[in-house]
Amino acid sequence: MKIRIDAERLWNSLMDLARIGATPKGGVRRITLSSADREGRDQFVRWAREAALAVRWDAVGNIFARRPGSEASAAAVMMGSHLDSQPSGGRFDGAYGVMAGLEVMRTLNDHGIVTRAPLEVASWTNEEGSRFVPVMMGSGVFAGIFPVEEALKATDREGIRAGEALAAIGYAGKPGAHKVAAYFEAHIEQGPVLEDTRTTIGVVQGALGQRWFDAAFTGQDSHAGPTPMELRKDALIAASRLVLEVNRIAKAYPDYARGTVGFMQVAPNSRNVVPGEVRMTVDLRNAEDATLRSMADDLERCAAAIAAECRVAAELREVVYFPPCKFAPRLVESVRRAARDLGFTHRDIVSGAAHDAVYLARVAPSAMIFVPCEAGISHNEIENARPGDLAAGCDVLLQAVLAQAGG
Amino acid sequence: MKIRIDAERLWNSLMDLARIGATPKGGVRRITLSSADREGRDQFVRWAREAALAVRWDAVGNIFARRPGSEASAAAVMMGSHLDSQPSGGRFDGAYGVMAGLEVMRTLNDHGIVTRAPLEVASWTNEEGSRFVPVMMGSGVFAGIFPVEEALKATDREGIRAGEALAAIGYAGKPGAHKVAAYFEAHIEQGPVLEDTRTTIGVVQGALGQRWFDAAFTGQDSHAGPTPMELRKDALIAASRLVLEVNRIAKAYPDYARGTVGFMQVAPNSRNVVPGEVRMTVDLRNAEDATLRSMADDLERCAAAIAAECRVAAELREVVYFPPCKFAPRLVESVRRAARDLGFTHRDIVSGAAHDAVYLARVAPSAMIFVPCEAGISHNEIENARPGDLAAGCDVLLQAVLAQAGG
Repeated sequence: MKIRIDAERLWNSLMDLARIGATPKGGVRRITLSSADREGRDQFVRWAREAALAVRWDAVGNIFARRPGSEASAAAVMMGSHLDSQPSGGRFDGAYGVMAGLEVMRTLNDHGIVTRAPLEVASWTNEEGSRFVPVMMGSGVFAGIFPVEEALKATDREGIRAGEALAAIGYAGKPGAHKVAAYFEAHIEQGPVLEDTRTTIGVVQGALGQRWFDAAFTGQDSHAGPTPMELRKDALIAASRLVLEVNRIAKAYPDYARGTVGFMQVAPNSRNVVPGEVRMTVDLRNAEDATLRSMADDLERCAAAIAAECRVAAELREVVYFPPCKFAPRLVESVRRAARDLGFTHRDIVSGAAHDAVYLARVAPSAMIFVPCEAGISHNEIENARPGDLAAGCDVLLQAVLAQAGG
Repeated sequence: MKIRIDAERLWNSLMDLARIGATPKGGVRRITLSSADREGRDQFVRWAREAALAVRWDAVGNIFARRPGSEASAAAVMMGSHLDSQPSGGRFDGAYGVMAGLEVMRTLNDHGIVTRAPLEVASWTNEEGSRFVPVMMGSGVFAGIFPVEEALKATDREGIRAGEALAAIGYAGKPGAHKVAAYFEAHIEQGPVLEDTRTTIGVVQGALGQRWFDAAFTGQDSHAGPTPMELRKDALIAASRLVLEVNRIAKAYPDYARGTVGFMQVAPNSRNVVPGEVRMTVDLRNAEDATLRSMADDLERCAAAIAAECRVAAELREVVYFPPCKFAPRLVESVRRAARDLGFTHRDIVSGAAHDAVYLARVAPSAMIFVPCEAGISHNEIENARPGDLAAGCDVLLQAVLAQAGG
């Protein structure tokens, strides 16, 4: 009989934490390095110390709560996520991964289990990126993606630097990363797949690579009445064709292809004027880098062909590239086995969005555990998840961690 | 040998008039019932009186400059257009039709010709509608489309009523329309057809009917990363398909069909969010009312089919309907014959936009004469036309008027 986490304690901790920065509509506003973020951190640190964990934080404010193992020199097996939220965020995005890690520690305490490797719960600074860019700042610094000095120079809209804000809330610690044997992050899916397929556990294979583009079509404004169809240079027709090509591309390619036009701006945007200019964005994602490259090539060919056929000028500029991330097969297998052994419905899934685990994967074997969220809605105050699903994900986390840390 | 107008005098009058409200980029800002409009009116009235015309204005400020005929009781043959401009307007839109009418009067004076029917030049109040709606206010009142009291109640953005503004510039006259035997309006084409086909004179058959719609598609916002293509409800894909259907419809139907989506607004309009809502407009035009109705029916079917296929909700609401206008065949033939007799290249054309002549056609036989404008551009400070083309249009106007008024 495997030990199990305390589902009620996990839920209560999540609900207690959600009181900090609570919004009237049931969500959370715990913007990074704000006073609400400090309160959230203080609460986590209090709970961690009550669980006899050793707490410290690094130069970018990442908090680590450590439980010793029997082999003192062994690298830690780490769990974690983030406590900051979107300006109108939900109760589970990020908070779940940190509270699940804490619940694993408490459960091991309850059963007096000592693992071989030490265990840690990490709370990464500024995952959301809504106040300071870069996003995933804390895990990015930890993984050496960018230097801590650069991260702390980031300024918000009021001109406050991240370094000042961090010092003001009392979480500026000493620099330096440490070795991690394995990293697990439990998270709500933030998408509809698990709910749609009535699955409890998503065994996350990795995260989609992303290529983001800015596109523009330039034709000629003209009066909608006196200008015959064959003499127009209508930028919106070109843009509309590109929207449909992006959709075709996303459906035509394998490997979890996705394609989105989320932004479009029409000029002069007047009812009876043929549009002379349209600016738009394209977001392409894929689990395989080569397929993602092919999608981008296809997009470029389409934009050029559409421009020629519509007699308008096209501009297409890539502005962001994140390569796909593949999680460590050994850890992914631990997650899958735990879900199976515990009798939870489970399926392989890829993360469409980036998470701290994507940066951790650059310096340590990493994996993620997804649980369903209601209607796939996240980054929204109405974000919701079921206590039973959250407990299931935490039980899977416990077993996967024990498999890596040694019982 | 037919008498000819004085091309240089016509051009000089146009250029003198263009100094009133001149903009730095070479255009004109003579907003209706403003002090610049008054100056323009005063100049026209001065010139008309210098040409021995009897000037008066009616309750909505339409100015009539009359030259007696030999048959005093005959209804007048009228020429005209408007002196107000768009906020950033050109030198020819409207002004040309009034100055051409004046030049016809001056030419008849030069040759001592007395027509059977009296002649009038009309300058209609507020054709543009950019300060006060309804547009084509003066000709609309004259034609009995709406009562003068209602027109004068219209307010601008500062809350000033049209009636106050009219009184303030000294052009509030006595109510009452009078009988018109025929109405001719010379105008720049405001489109590219004549220039594109190297034609000097457009023999205008009528004006396209118009049906304007507000459309909206409502799906579901979702994260561009975690949401697989098959679980999306993307409003922008639906909107893009409708843009292409509007284009197809405009190309598929006969009778000068036109279709335009000029306005589109995407929500939440964020790069990595699948759009949950798009609002857009559709502008359909056709020379035949039955064809225009079929185009609208086609549009409605398309919007419903697209909504079903994209799993979004569609809303389509007609907001404006102008029936097509057909000019009087006898007058149109006078224009065609004059162009032919004078040796000008000419072609039948329809007006894609509405003009004062469209309202006049409700109460009197009416026709229009189009001349080319550079690149089809109008409602813009860079609007331009060639002196030779303007003179040719005025010569055609002279002959057509003589044919109707009797020499």
